[in-house]
Amino acid sequence: MDEIAPPPRLLMGPGPISVDPRVLRAMAAPLVGQFDPFMTATMNEVMALYREVFDTGNEQTFVVDGTARAGIEAALVSLVEPGDRVLVPVFGRFGHLLTEIATRCGAEVHTVEVPWGQVVDPGRVEAAIREVRPKVLACVQGDTSTTMCQPLAEIGALCREHDVLFYCDATASLGGNEFRADAWHLDIATAGLQKCLGGPSGSAPITLSPRAVDVIRGRRHVEQGIREDGDEPTGRVIASNYLDLAMVMDYWGPRRLNHHTEATSMLYAARECARLLGAEGLDHAVARHEVHGRAMLRGVQGLGLGVFGDLAHKMNNVVAVEIPEQLGAAGGDAVRARLLDDFAIEIGTSFGPLHGKVWRIGTMGHNARKDAVLTTLAALEQVLRAAGVRVPAGGGVAAAQEVYA
Amino acid sequence: MDEIAPPPRLLMGPGPISVDPRVLRAMAAPLVGQFDPFMTATMNEVMALYREVFDTGNEQTFVVDGTARAGIEAALVSLVEPGDRVLVPVFGRFGHLLTEIATRCGAEVHTVEVPWGQVVDPGRVEAAIREVRPKVLACVQGDTSTTMCQPLAEIGALCREHDVLFYCDATASLGGNEFRADAWHLDIATAGLQKCLGGPSGSAPITLSPRAVDVIRGRRHVEQGIREDGDEPTGRVIASNYLDLAMVMDYWGPRRLNHHTEATSMLYAARECARLLGAEGLDHAVARHEVHGRAMLRGVQGLGLGVFGDLAHKMNNVVAVEIPEQLGAAGGDAVRARLLDDFAIEIGTSFGPLHGKVWRIGTMGHNARKDAVLTTLAALEQVLRAAGVRVPAGGGVAAAQEVYA
Repeated sequence: MDEIAPPPRLLMGPGPISVDPRVLRAMAAPLVGQFDPFMTATMNEVMALYREVFDTGNEQTFVVDGTARAGIEAALVSLVEPGDRVLVPVFGRFGHLLTEIATRCGAEVHTVEVPWGQVVDPGRVEAAIREVRPKVLACVQGDTSTTMCQPLAEIGALCREHDVLFYCDATASLGGNEFRADAWHLDIATAGLQKCLGGPSGSAPITLSPRAVDVIRGRRHVEQGIREDGDEPTGRVIASNYLDLAMVMDYWGPRRLNHHTEATSMLYAARECARLLGAEGLDHAVARHEVHGRAMLRGVQGLGLGVFGDLAHKMNNVVAVEIPEQLGAAGGDAVRARLLDDFAIEIGTSFGPLHGKVWRIGTMGHNARKDAVLTTLAALEQVLRAAGVRVPAGGGVAAAQEVYA
Repeated sequence: MDEIAPPPRLLMGPGPISVDPRVLRAMAAPLVGQFDPFMTATMNEVMALYREVFDTGNEQTFVVDGTARAGIEAALVSLVEPGDRVLVPVFGRFGHLLTEIATRCGAEVHTVEVPWGQVVDPGRVEAAIREVRPKVLACVQGDTSTTMCQPLAEIGALCREHDVLFYCDATASLGGNEFRADAWHLDIATAGLQKCLGGPSGSAPITLSPRAVDVIRGRRHVEQGIREDGDEPTGRVIASNYLDLAMVMDYWGPRRLNHHTEATSMLYAARECARLLGAEGLDHAVARHEVHGRAMLRGVQGLGLGVFGDLAHKMNNVVAVEIPEQLGAAGGDAVRARLLDDFAIEIGTSFGPLHGKVWRIGTMGHNARKDAVLTTLAALEQVLRAAGVRVPAGGGVAAAQEVYA
């Protein structure tokens, strides 16, 4: 068997996307020891960098060693005790995932659901808060399954007013859409590197407000063998050891209490993702995602294709493109396969009620770029024409170019 | 802030160790999509490669996306239901970790403990099995906290005889000490890349016997939204979503049911670690760890230093070196700091009852090499002498050279 040699790919799906080459290079840097002064300094740098990314002053801002889903579970399992009530606004697949994970934590889960393609009205959320009186409200910001981006400011204000802990999964949106952890009263937010941050999956940035820290520290159980005076266990033990944020905070904090062995190469990747974003400027990065996302949107419309969902609330970084009826579901997959085989471009399929009905095309991270947008539109035009779909010659690229003009 | 630029380090502690440069290079390879044919083929290659590493025919052999500790928790949370009895032979810190994690899974945990520096007698294990009648026996193979390597063949035979599920954490030993998943009747074994496999922390290889698969499939709850006919939930739901091995198997299996987004760069690392090991030959790699481990052992003895623990059961890849009494705990740390600052060599501190009493020196993965051993011994001699310890000039290197002669 030979060294790994992946084929060239332009990843224009809903993520993971092509990693910024500078992030790949960072992962190839050599390791240092787990408590080397350089290692702990790097951990501190990562904390500072992600405070900027989340727009927060939260001391407790770091990365969880796992994919974005590990970050979600760490937040929920550390906050939620069996029997706690959790309220989840559901507007796509990842809302269902939050209900699934909260249920496994033993929560009594209540939902506010809207049809796919819409966002949730804060009035309905407020009514549900009054009725359910949840301990935690858990909400996705950007749900790639529908491309919708839920406004969070009003929900955050409601949570604070009603003393509800507010958790947000910002995996698909962070770095490409406005996000204000402190201004929106977030108590925990989590993400992943593999979307707008331009990195690979495998590290989950997280930030915790002092309120969330208090709740979780109230469930602190230092491991036997490294426990010292003052470390007496309090509260109900968190069901997971690996994802116990009280322990993870002690590992990232000044005591450096041994927990897992930090995944150093992924830490380097997380650092480089945030460093590049900081060098560009967060607001600039969001504006970049808006421009290239709009160019892709206008481009697919310029090819005569329909677009799914409430465009006023579309995420900047992904668009759901209706598969022409004449193709059907199988034809939709054939178009994706042809794009991959002939042009080395990946676009996404979809889940649940949208399966076989839309493609999802992303413009995020390193691939929120003009050449990536135009190349994808040019190739899509060719493949659609070959599949028998009538498309205006050059219509996609021209419409995108108008955005750039 | 600049690009990451770690200082040079020769990592001769108990792990993580310096990563093989070929593994670092593999991580810098570009990504492909989550269900790209190249991606699924690579996942299948990784499964085949780790069957060789674990010496097993188990179909269900793959990696968990997290550090070694995530692999341990995935095994235990997927096997153990609240109220189940779990028996843990404890001969060091990582035995305590297994009891800690099993307890959080709701298990009634029983232990067989021996003093640090010894391994557990199978006779005591058999007596405990007869008394406790556990569902699961969970045991570390190599516990770096004491350097002991627990023989597993007899315990495996006992588990099979008494119909007990046998789990082993082989994180610190796999690849550098004999390991036979099938011959020793292992039902689940897990590991990490950052020890003898020569990779970074962040990916946890795992193998499951058909018996373990049956138990875990009996608790299968496919996520809402991707559930199909025949996916009706059975058994008690596994408390974790992220570490639910029933779902992870469906993701790695032919159905490719969406779960987490595979950490592709870590997958590439895991593949390269196993590929290099396979190219060397597993038996050769174990023999290499034995030789260089013995050279380090003889070397520190040649410097007049004492060695902790039952040497008949020492792991090949780590030695616990007694800190000369005249130095005390603070002096022991000063020696480590001097080695790091002046020679860029890291050796390890220790936990619990051994804290301040021994250094732990590893020879593993890429650093199970003659030049790494001799350089470490030469530097240690200089630093000890500077600290006022009487050491025979050249005694460490000469003793190691005798092993190589």
